[in-house]
Formats: sequence, structure tokens, C-alpha cells
Amino acid sequence: MTTQTFPPVAQHHHKVFESISVPNRLLLGPGPSNSHPDVLKALALPPIGHLDPFYIDLMGEVQELLRYAWQTDNRLTLPMSGTGSAAMEATIANTVEPGDKILVAIKGYFGHRLVDMADRYRAEVSTIEKEWGKAFSIEEIESALIKYRPSILAMVHAETSTGVCQPLEGIGDLCRKYDCLFLLDTVTSLGGVPLFLDAWGIDLAYSCSQKGLSCPPGLGPFTISPRAEKKLNSRLGKVPNWYLDVSLLNKYWGSDRVYHHTAPVNMNFGIREALRLLSEEGLENAWNRHQLNARRLWEGFEKLGLDLYVKKEIRLPTLTTVQIPKGVDGKAFTLHLLKNHGIEIGGGLGVLAGKVWRIGLMGYNSTSENVDNILNLFETELPRFR
Amino acid sequence: MTTQTFPPVAQHHHKVFESISVPNRLLLGPGPSNSHPDVLKALALPPIGHLDPFYIDLMGEVQELLRYAWQTDNRLTLPMSGTGSAAMEATIANTVEPGDKILVAIKGYFGHRLVDMADRYRAEVSTIEKEWGKAFSIEEIESALIKYRPSILAMVHAETSTGVCQPLEGIGDLCRKYDCLFLLDTVTSLGGVPLFLDAWGIDLAYSCSQKGLSCPPGLGPFTISPRAEKKLNSRLGKVPNWYLDVSLLNKYWGSDRVYHHTAPVNMNFGIREALRLLSEEGLENAWNRHQLNARRLWEGFEKLGLDLYVKKEIRLPTLTTVQIPKGVDGKAFTLHLLKNHGIEIGGGLGVLAGKVWRIGLMGYNSTSENVDNILNLFETELPRFR
Repeated sequence: MTTQTFPPVAQHHHKVFESISVPNRLLLGPGPSNSHPDVLKALALPPIGHLDPFYIDLMGEVQELLRYAWQTDNRLTLPMSGTGSAAMEATIANTVEPGDKILVAIKGYFGHRLVDMADRYRAEVSTIEKEWGKAFSIEEIESALIKYRPSILAMVHAETSTGVCQPLEGIGDLCRKYDCLFLLDTVTSLGGVPLFLDAWGIDLAYSCSQKGLSCPPGLGPFTISPRAEKKLNSRLGKVPNWYLDVSLLNKYWGSDRVYHHTAPVNMNFGIREALRLLSEEGLENAWNRHQLNARRLWEGFEKLGLDLYVKKEIRLPTLTTVQIPKGVDGKAFTLHLLKNHGIEIGGGLGVLAGKVWRIGLMGYNSTSENVDNILNLFETELPRFR
Repeated sequence: MTTQTFPPVAQHHHKVFESISVPNRLLLGPGPSNSHPDVLKALALPPIGHLDPFYIDLMGEVQELLRYAWQTDNRLTLPMSGTGSAAMEATIANTVEPGDKILVAIKGYFGHRLVDMADRYRAEVSTIEKEWGKAFSIEEIESALIKYRPSILAMVHAETSTGVCQPLEGIGDLCRKYDCLFLLDTVTSLGGVPLFLDAWGIDLAYSCSQKGLSCPPGLGPFTISPRAEKKLNSRLGKVPNWYLDVSLLNKYWGSDRVYHHTAPVNMNFGIREALRLLSEEGLENAWNRHQLNARRLWEGFEKLGLDLYVKKEIRLPTLTTVQIPKGVDGKAFTLHLLKNHGIEIGGGLGVLAGKVWRIGLMGYNSTSENVDNILNLFETELPRFR
């Protein structure tokens, strides 16, 4: 019982709002995607303690299911307690020491974000750039590794800003040949696109919960290979980011279970259920489903005379960029779909602003019904926007 | 359509788990606390886009309700997309430049965490320490400000490790007299303990979602005063943390609504509802409820002959530390309550490990029924552990 006297309570921010109600949306943009109903049910379970024996078991399940989804044996595989961008920053924060050379292969918006982050951790950043909508060849990667001799090569697997899927075979071998770590953004590929972290020699990867995993946004899957752990363990100073410091997180997610921060337990209920559903379906089935539904979408757009921005060989099944025809107000059509049909699709980012629509078919939303639904709206309603 | 050939899918992490089911717990530890049922319902609403007009409106509501809860007019008041520890780090990351002097007044575990973080942002850290269970006097604070002349004074309002509520009146004035910013941890006070950020001259504060707000863990309320914004805006370099950079976040949460990261939309549904409920109850009523139920708990323990660790004048209503009587295996009793009664209480942290239990009555859980329930178990079952 305190004996302090207090000032009067100010009431000018004291607003009384109605109980929350949320419009029903079909999210066919770059993400978030809709969540599986079982995942939403899991989110609403009553929270338990972050050191509760039940929760400790659940953490182990999440880790094991993430290893399966990513096809990795990495011990340190866990969801960061933030969104995909936090997990992205975790890969940089833990492995970059001031002055380290990092090479970022940029082919869209998210490559630039990696540069910005690496710069903040005082890396010496080099970049190679590819026109938006294209992928790097293995020869281009090798030349750059020879030229810059980085200690980390960072790139994006599935570029959400362009719809390009970067072929990865052979790059991991090059990273070993030139003695550098391979850091990969798998935000728009995990769960939806074939991905083999260990077989492809990927040392650091991150993703998100709200795309291929059919969970709401809020967690950032993260993994680090034993090879990258060595670099972490030989750091001269502490990781310059407490919240994302994997050496501390390892004491909680590893066998010691030492308190680091209070885990977002309900979000972890959700991702556990999301990963369980992916495991139940099986990775190959999930990848095939994404591929088949994407093909159905692409063929439909071609029939409607709409051009796809990315050539077929490197086209991402989870996110398709459609060119906005000349004379069409792309933004007006996007708003029309949202307001009158409750469907969200995305516009272009950066250099593609105003030039493309971005249509996502991810996780729970990758269904033939959704494809037919959106194609039908493009067929019947787009002509009014020309 | 890719023409790559893929390795076989490894099945050794391919586990098939049952659908999730979670034990029912009454969380009377240091946090998380139980969530209000309406908040859990909000979490399970279908996600919408982070740039959806509906979501943009909801962000404004969350900000306004947070201003009320904290009693501040700060423009930059928002929930960080991480737990309370992320928001803690955000206060440091945004305002500390290398070489800045920061003074941390430590009276428990979380003061040490502030030191660790400030150190990682290359501050020149000074500390004053108080025995765990005690609070600083205004004279002690002033002497330290004179001695160290810091640019930031950081302290914890409600020390979750000890159960001490630090009296704050006058400290903000001292911070102006000695030209430093006042940074305050309000993790275990927001929503449960009288707190007047503006009237008390607090420049930087952070909290969590899972205690006084009755929401699951996963968001970290954060606020920064115009005075502290000036320091942020005069930085020589970028904030060395991309995810928590308030100058970037301001473009999303401010009027521009420029994409920064994909917001954890469902967690924000939850905190919106949690803050709405607090606003509906009214701050004064919520504070009184916490005070009354805490008193009921304290009186009950005294009747049972148990000693409270903190003297009444600075005792926190949200978290009570009870001394473990000599000869009692405190951990065994804690485990007994969890396993046989589904009730979580906390053990001691740091120097108080094995010496105290920590009992939280926070937000939704601060009820007379919960008090009577836990007192009854102490009365009837503790004797078996002596």
C-alpha cells in the first residue's frame, strides 16, 4: 500500500469503443494469407506459462516440425518472437561482426532490406543487382564471390516483390569453395516451394508464419547451421542485439530452458498447429498443391490476355506478378476488389509500383476455388476499369 | 514452373502429432497472467492485411487507448511487434548513441537486463544498486545524477523480481534539472498500478501485453516523449536495430502508413480488445481493484503467519513476494500447485532463488476469488511441505 498522492486521471484519451469486429477478407495478396481455422482455434486457447512443462514439450514439437518443413537437421531451429523481419535481422545480427564483408545479391525490394540491415551491423556491404523480375545465374554468383570474397552471401529465395524464384542448386557448394556462409530469405517459399536447406548448403535462413504456414503474422522461423554457429561462437564481442541473440535464446530453446524473455505462447500454439497441419499433408503434397494451383492461375490469366511479369522457368508458385494492362487504373481495381468483394490483392512495390498486381496463393489459400474466384473477377470486372 | 530436379524429401523429422490441447491453468505467477475471454476471441478472428483500411483504423484505436492507459499525450505510442523485452530494447536502441552516458538504477533482475542491453548499444554505463526488496530514495537518485551526469536515467517502476514499486514523484523533475532523459520499465505496472507518464516526466517507457492488460504475451507497448524524440532525431547514424527503429516505425504508425514490416495483426486485435476493456472499466477502477485484491492477499498471508518480503509502503499490488518458511521445499510446493491444482505461481529469480514465491494478481486475474483460492491452498496444503 503506497502513501503517494496522485494527480487526477486525464480523460482526453479515454475513448469507449465497440467490441472488435473484423471484416471477412480473402487475402490473395503478398501476405498475410488467410489462416487455417484450426490455427485460429489454437490461438484462442488460454495461455500457459513459458516455463510450464507442457509448453516446454510444445517448444520441442515446434522445433522438430520446423526442421521437417525446412529439411534441416540444424539444432538451432526456432521461431523468433517477432515477425519475419525480426528473424531476417537475427540472421545478420548474430553472424555479422563490424567490418565483415557481406555480399547481397539483390533482385527486388527485400534484397535492399538485407543491405540496410547489414549496414546497421557495420558490415562492409557489397552488392550485385539483377533487373527486377530476373534471377541470378550460377556464373554471376561465382564471379561476384571471386570479386568480393565475402564472409556471407545473402540472397532471397522467393522475391515477394517480383514473383521470382531464385534457383539455388550449386550456390551452397560455391559458398563452401569460397569459404563463406550462405544466408537465405525463405519468407515466401517455406511450405509452398521445394526447399532443402541442408542438401543445398544453406547456413542461415529465416521465414514468416503468415504465408506458406497458414498462421497469422507474428513469428519468424529462424535456423542456423553448425558451420554458421562456429562464426557466432568465435565472435569477439556480444551480439549487438539482446532480443535476437541466439546464444541467449539457445539457453531457453536448448536443453537448459533458462528464461530469456516471456515467450509469445499463443502465437506458438498457432504455429505448432500450422506446422502440424503441414506435416499431416506432407511437404511434397503441399508443394504440388501450390504448383498446380499456380499453374491454373497462370493459364487463366493467359486466356484472359493478361501478361505475367516473370518467365515461366523462374516463376514463383506462391506469388504471381501480373502486368497491369495499359490504360487500366490498377489501384482502383485493387480497391474495388477489397471494398466490393472482400478480396485483397497486392500492388507493386518499388520500381514495380503501378506496373503489376501481386497475387498470392499461399498455404491455406492455395485452392482451385480461390483461383477460379479471382480469375472470374478479373474476367467480369476488370473491363470496367479499362 | 521450375525445371530443377530435387533431392528426396527427408522424413526423419516428419512427426505426426495430435491436434493441440492445452491444460487449463490459473496463472498466478510473475506473468503471463490469464487473458480475458474476449481478448482470446479477438485473437481467433481471421487476419486481415496490415494495410487494410480497417486495420489502419484499428491501429489508431490501439494507440489512443495506450495513451490513456499510460496517461500520456506522446504521439509515438505504439505496441512493438515483439514481447516486452523487445520494447525494452527499443527504448535503448533508439536513444543511445555510442559513448552516451546511461545511468541504471538497479534494484532487481530487470535492472541488470537494462545494463546488458545498454552495453550492447555501446553506451558508457554507470549503475547504482539497491538491495533487492528496497526502493531508491529521491536523494539517492539526485546524488547519482550529480555524480554521473548521464544523458539517460533508466529504472524499473515495478520490479517483477522483488515485488517492489519504486516511488516516482520528483524523479522526472530531477531529470530535467540535470538534463537527462527518464526511461522507465512499466512491464508489471501498466494497467495495475497508478502511473502517470506525462505528469511524472517520463520520457521513454515500455511494457508488455500479458500482465495488467490481460492479453497473451507477444506485444511490447512503447512510448517516447517529444523530448526524447529530439535525441532520436539528432542521432549521427542510423538506429543500429532495423526492426525496432522508431524513425521507420513512425512512417507506418504515423500518418504516412508506409509499409515497414508485416504487422502481427491478430495480436493487435487482442491488445485492442484488452485496452478497450481497460478503458471500459476505467483506470482508477482497475487500479483500485488491484490494490484491494492485493491487500486481501497480504492480510491472508499474514494471518497464515507467512512473511512478505517487501515492506508495505513500497509493495507492488500486481506482484507479491512471500518468504518461503525455513524447512519448506519451495520448489516442491510450486510443482504441487501446478500439477495437482493447475495453478502457476513463481519462484525467486537471481539472489531470491529458493527464498521467495512470487504471486501475481494481474489484470483479469486480480479477483477476490483467485485470492481466496490461493490462500486456501497455502493454508491447507503447505503444512505437508514443511
